[in-house]
Amino acid sequence: MKIGIAGYGNLGRGVEAAVELAGDMDLTAVFTRRDPETVKVATDTPVLPMTKIDEMAEDIDVIILCGGSATDLPVMTPEIAAKCNVVDSFDTHANIPQHLAAVDESAKAAGNIGVISVGWDPGLFSVARLYANAALPVGKDYTFWGRGVSQGHSDAIRRIDGVLDARQYTVPVEEAVQRVRNGENPDLTTRDKHTRECYVVAEEGADLEAIEKAIVTMPNYFDEYDTTVTFITQEEMDRDHKGLPHGGSVLRSGVTGIEGEFGDTIEFSLNLESNPYFTGSVLAAVARAAYRMNKEGESGARTIFDIPPYLLCETPREELIAHML
Amino acid sequence: MKIGIAGYGNLGRGVEAAVELAGDMDLTAVFTRRDPETVKVATDTPVLPMTKIDEMAEDIDVIILCGGSATDLPVMTPEIAAKCNVVDSFDTHANIPQHLAAVDESAKAAGNIGVISVGWDPGLFSVARLYANAALPVGKDYTFWGRGVSQGHSDAIRRIDGVLDARQYTVPVEEAVQRVRNGENPDLTTRDKHTRECYVVAEEGADLEAIEKAIVTMPNYFDEYDTTVTFITQEEMDRDHKGLPHGGSVLRSGVTGIEGEFGDTIEFSLNLESNPYFTGSVLAAVARAAYRMNKEGESGARTIFDIPPYLLCETPREELIAHML
Repeated sequence: MKIGIAGYGNLGRGVEAAVELAGDMDLTAVFTRRDPETVKVATDTPVLPMTKIDEMAEDIDVIILCGGSATDLPVMTPEIAAKCNVVDSFDTHANIPQHLAAVDESAKAAGNIGVISVGWDPGLFSVARLYANAALPVGKDYTFWGRGVSQGHSDAIRRIDGVLDARQYTVPVEEAVQRVRNGENPDLTTRDKHTRECYVVAEEGADLEAIEKAIVTMPNYFDEYDTTVTFITQEEMDRDHKGLPHGGSVLRSGVTGIEGEFGDTIEFSLNLESNPYFTGSVLAAVARAAYRMNKEGESGARTIFDIPPYLLCETPREELIAHML
Repeated sequence: MKIGIAGYGNLGRGVEAAVELAGDMDLTAVFTRRDPETVKVATDTPVLPMTKIDEMAEDIDVIILCGGSATDLPVMTPEIAAKCNVVDSFDTHANIPQHLAAVDESAKAAGNIGVISVGWDPGLFSVARLYANAALPVGKDYTFWGRGVSQGHSDAIRRIDGVLDARQYTVPVEEAVQRVRNGENPDLTTRDKHTRECYVVAEEGADLEAIEKAIVTMPNYFDEYDTTVTFITQEEMDRDHKGLPHGGSVLRSGVTGIEGEFGDTIEFSLNLESNPYFTGSVLAAVARAAYRMNKEGESGARTIFDIPPYLLCETPREELIAHML
């Protein structure tokens, strides 16, 4: 199948690598809003201006949208779903129903499939929550994120006066994770579940105490967490904090039995050295499913909840059933 | 939806409890090959002879088959799939394709759905393997079982001369699990992955050394494992080893990136206080999906790989997307 990528940042790079790896996919084009001459991709794929999607869409089976959730995807996904099958990683949880409706309308009218909110959260974590809830209808869900880099929190620190660079790690509190694993069903506050570690490069002569205070008291981002701030040099930042690792665990603890007398725990965990490359890999797998569903005559908006899992793999269904079931 | 249970052992009891819990299911009948008078169920459900399925099938939406994989299900599932939607827990991995074909033929001819090999392995572990392979096509799978009771191994010990009762626990080797979690991609032999703990009640005056030797050298069951044998009294057996706990972990360790430069690990784990009650709960969720697929006009044999996940939950799709994605 022929794949396009719209938007070429970290996530676009991740999708490119995943498509390159897949035996059943070819990367037809990378579309960008920047000057295509300035965009250097990792493969020999042509880089075209975003406006070329109109004429290229006919020759592409699925376009994977690698824009941001805040302003890009709410416009981009419905628009491009009117021209081609699409997959996006829309992750503003509160606006998912509205995004789904917009994509459904435009995809259905065009006879295309648009799969939204794909990645690991939303994505694999969501589907783990769903299976856990199906298997244990009486129970309690917990999600822990990290240890990993939060781009949003890193950006928030960078906007503080006197800060040159920053990297923020979200860290799950190991004791809290362990209590959930033990089936204790604890009530956990925001502070109980995660801590935040900040590594900051400050301008020479900046007021470090003021920067630290601005970070730890920042509403929504840090004030409800135990936050540590460590000042480092730009060299240390470049040497020790270049990567974008992430991961976490979805847990459900519940009961079975006629009186709820048996306690069970289900856990799904990810430990990712590169968040965007893993997310890109999930997007590529879902693009395969989108193509196959569309070939069967389906159209409209979908989520990972709607996809029969066998459609995600390159391996044919019969082989999966024979060897993986 | 109206549910029937065929076969009332530990698994049948587990399904009964799960159906009782579900707000959208009623248990219509329990079918048994024993004298129905002798079968005491946990709810006030009528117990009927297995032969009554013929006349009752019309009033039941899905019959959940709780027989054994060795001799019951290969006959029972295709036979009953000709009369009603069915779900089974067939777990002889090597014979799954053949079982699938037999069920497909009879279910399709009758316009019914037959979902085979449901539970946690095959079942939730299978689907965890599939998502992990879709997300990380380059990698290696590992499955660890336990700590949990293996019924087959316990039975094998009970057949030894001089043994009155026995319970065998399969135990994953923690160090091996840890190496996989660390992304070391180890090559592990059978002995590296699991140990076997046996608790045995012997007849008075039995040759304990001979029993121990018969266990640890038993081909296929124990000879490839580090096995410990502990002799206990019947009182200790009844007090400390009544439960049927189980669980384990499915892990996949793989790489992403254009050169495979990033290492990731995916893990799905279960910690179950009661294996049959949890398995029963999964069977009930899949029965819901079978009913819904059949209502949409689908027929034939299915596995958990074929089921869009949202069909498994009592909660409607829109609500799942709004709150669980």
